[in-house]
Amino acid sequence: MSLVVVGSVAYDGIETPHGKRDRILGGACTYIALSASYFTPVKIVGIVGEDFAESDVTILKDRNIDVAGLERVVGKTFFWKGVYSQDMNDRETLVTDLNVFADFNPKLPESYRDQPYLMLGNIQPGLQRAVRHQMKEPRLVGGDTMNFWITGSREELLETIKEWDFLLINDSEARLLSAETNLKKAAKKIMAMGPSTLVIKRGEYGAMLFRGDDYFIVPGYLLDEVFDPTGAGDCFAGGFVGYLAEQGIDLARGHIDRRELSRAVIHGSVMGSFCCEKFGPERFYSLTRAEIDARFQEFKKFTDF
Amino acid sequence: MSLVVVGSVAYDGIETPHGKRDRILGGACTYIALSASYFTPVKIVGIVGEDFAESDVTILKDRNIDVAGLERVVGKTFFWKGVYSQDMNDRETLVTDLNVFADFNPKLPESYRDQPYLMLGNIQPGLQRAVRHQMKEPRLVGGDTMNFWITGSREELLETIKEWDFLLINDSEARLLSAETNLKKAAKKIMAMGPSTLVIKRGEYGAMLFRGDDYFIVPGYLLDEVFDPTGAGDCFAGGFVGYLAEQGIDLARGHIDRRELSRAVIHGSVMGSFCCEKFGPERFYSLTRAEIDARFQEFKKFTDF
Repeated sequence: MSLVVVGSVAYDGIETPHGKRDRILGGACTYIALSASYFTPVKIVGIVGEDFAESDVTILKDRNIDVAGLERVVGKTFFWKGVYSQDMNDRETLVTDLNVFADFNPKLPESYRDQPYLMLGNIQPGLQRAVRHQMKEPRLVGGDTMNFWITGSREELLETIKEWDFLLINDSEARLLSAETNLKKAAKKIMAMGPSTLVIKRGEYGAMLFRGDDYFIVPGYLLDEVFDPTGAGDCFAGGFVGYLAEQGIDLARGHIDRRELSRAVIHGSVMGSFCCEKFGPERFYSLTRAEIDARFQEFKKFTDF
Repeated sequence: MSLVVVGSVAYDGIETPHGKRDRILGGACTYIALSASYFTPVKIVGIVGEDFAESDVTILKDRNIDVAGLERVVGKTFFWKGVYSQDMNDRETLVTDLNVFADFNPKLPESYRDQPYLMLGNIQPGLQRAVRHQMKEPRLVGGDTMNFWITGSREELLETIKEWDFLLINDSEARLLSAETNLKKAAKKIMAMGPSTLVIKRGEYGAMLFRGDDYFIVPGYLLDEVFDPTGAGDCFAGGFVGYLAEQGIDLARGHIDRRELSRAVIHGSVMGSFCCEKFGPERFYSLTRAEIDARFQEFKKFTDF
């Protein structure tokens, strides 16, 4: 009973005020999978080039991630390079070489198709839809998107998300998608587009979950140092959907304990916060479930009144 | 056993996307006092001109606010006029006529001096200090300040806040005062300047409280409509200090229940949220304690996990 994760697998060049890495494992699929792997078995679907290092495959396998759907083709792996501002709230993209990712046409291995959970990382909405249709009867389907698709492929995106149980985006994307500044109104409009559950990420300010007339808000974790925020949003997604999978939650069911959904948001927040503590996905090379559970308790403590 | 509040009493001209008011009761002292009056008896110290309407005095008296310290002199009342951006996150100041406020030299009536609680609204730090010294033995002293004093009167401000039990500022002010981007580090530096308790307001994103190594964070209330955010920060202050006064809390004591401090932050958040629901202080013309208590319970509900 696994979670299938689709998205980019990449190499990143990252520079923050704390240092730099010229080439480190990255991509939405990578971050979501590493994060979710603490909660549930994960199977990934992605594409890489001949330059993709065996040691990076090992990083995934070490977290028991099934890489049967990781296609390797002639050419180079997707490469992104960016530099963060002094306060880390902005980043400038210096390089985006799609490389083999430009022709990504995800095909799910037979062993993936009857899995119950599907998380569609931020890729072209038509591809997300095609992946959804390759799955037999998933119990829970959700995903992410971005400004580029909201403005450039709006109709296709709407066709796609209407089949989703949850949508997970950031606040500026929610405002853009709904054409509403007020997030309460924005949420209502977006849920009317299909997803019964909406999660809005607010970066350092935390996250919100909407479902029907109910909602939950949590502030962001206060890190001693934000080392590198790359991938934090995807790690949030991995923690959120990973926890739902671990708990066997089915969002299409009529009644769901709001507390369980809230706890999924907390687990997303926990995983996003850990992600920022080292460069790229490096924090996950040593992170343990005990540390995750301890940080969950920290959230309890600093939000209790 | 009252709370003494010092600060500006003004007229405001306000324009938001929802409408406008050419001239409405305003000023930090006004907002703090109206908000705090739901929790504790309040005595204000301020200055107004001959144009200050009796009907506006009545608004204060109707909330049982003692106006013995509201000095009326020859000249015009402080007038501020501003216009908010479409998303309400920015505002442009069009007019700042200090008028009689330029010569404000607060003198506390004898009946104020032995009161236990003192809230110093954002005025020149030297004046805040002079007011503090007119009080006999206040149990709890705190206040607000702003960028203008942090950069322009830094030494005087540091002399002033070192005698305070709490400082209540927004996040950009906390970063400016501490020269630290990271709020956890900023808080530590600021508490070393004197105040044992620091409250950081984050606008729509909520608020944080720091005390020693402990901290509390609450997200902002999700309003159906932000009608006019003028005064919301001061209403937060009024709810915070008003609740502390109501509960008889003395921040200089060794051990204080962190939960009580957290609840003071929630009451601040509740009052700030109500303030935004109508123009200027108009929401307080009808607000009841029952509505406040109901919103406190709403905070419980949407933050519970």
